[in-house]
Amino acid sequence: MKNKVAMAFGSFDVLHPGHIRYLKGASRFGKLIVVVARDRSIKRLKGTAPLVDERSRREIIGSLRFVDRAVLGDRIGKWNDIYKIVARIRPDFLVFGYDQRVDLEYLRGFLLKHKLNCKVVRIGSYKAGKYKSSKLKKLIDAIH
Amino acid sequence: MKNKVAMAFGSFDVLHPGHIRYLKGASRFGKLIVVVARDRSIKRLKGTAPLVDERSRREIIGSLRFVDRAVLGDRIGKWNDIYKIVARIRPDFLVFGYDQRVDLEYLRGFLLKHKLNCKVVRIGSYKAGKYKSSKLKKLIDAIH
Repeated sequence: MKNKVAMAFGSFDVLHPGHIRYLKGASRFGKLIVVVARDRSIKRLKGTAPLVDERSRREIIGSLRFVDRAVLGDRIGKWNDIYKIVARIRPDFLVFGYDQRVDLEYLRGFLLKHKLNCKVVRIGSYKAGKYKSSKLKKLIDAIH
Repeated sequence: MKNKVAMAFGSFDVLHPGHIRYLKGASRFGKLIVVVARDRSIKRLKGTAPLVDERSRREIIGSLRFVDRAVLGDRIGKWNDIYKIVARIRPDFLVFGYDQRVDLEYLRGFLLKHKLNCKVVRIGSYKAGKYKSSKLKKLIDAIH
């Protein structure tokens, strides 16, 4: 599948095994391009800034052996803006994690509008819940 | 230098760019074997358990493209026990991060005793302090 291009998305603020499984799984669909959310986008969408800045998060993700390229996402104002990059890079697969928020209806319209022949895939959960980022941060908070 | 073997050490609980720089730097000395501290060793030495379990930490570190092998450390009772694995694997270089606690006097004696011809190297700091794990955790604590 290495002549295909797969795209994955995330903030990847505090790296946990769920991220690794997600990206490893995504890489099976093709050459993997990972879109790392910008600091300002995270702050706007989630309300809090990430702990690790965007340059560093991109560097960490780009250091994983099954990631072909890590790029910073667009500066965005609302969730659906994350798909803008899809129209530029035109991957063969869009791969989402089991708990990622995806507006499938909007996304289908977007793909049609941009004449993108792109399969949307969801990767199954890995110990669902245990390593969800939000839970991990709560755990960090509880310990310290 | 790829016919040489380098060894690096750490807990790598919440991965940050300082870890990446450390391991990338260590990999320049040879085939890189990373010793990931066990949960119980961390709890014993630092007083608190890690957030991410040893199997997962090993998996994450082993997913980095410049790491040749990630192994779990010995079950240890005191700091100096981390060197036991050095006598088994006999690397050419022991590479430490800029802020890692190393008992150089003990280590030199240990290397002599085990007839190990092993260079001890320290990697310079990357934005020293900014991404120190202990500081990162304090930051996490402050935000949540």
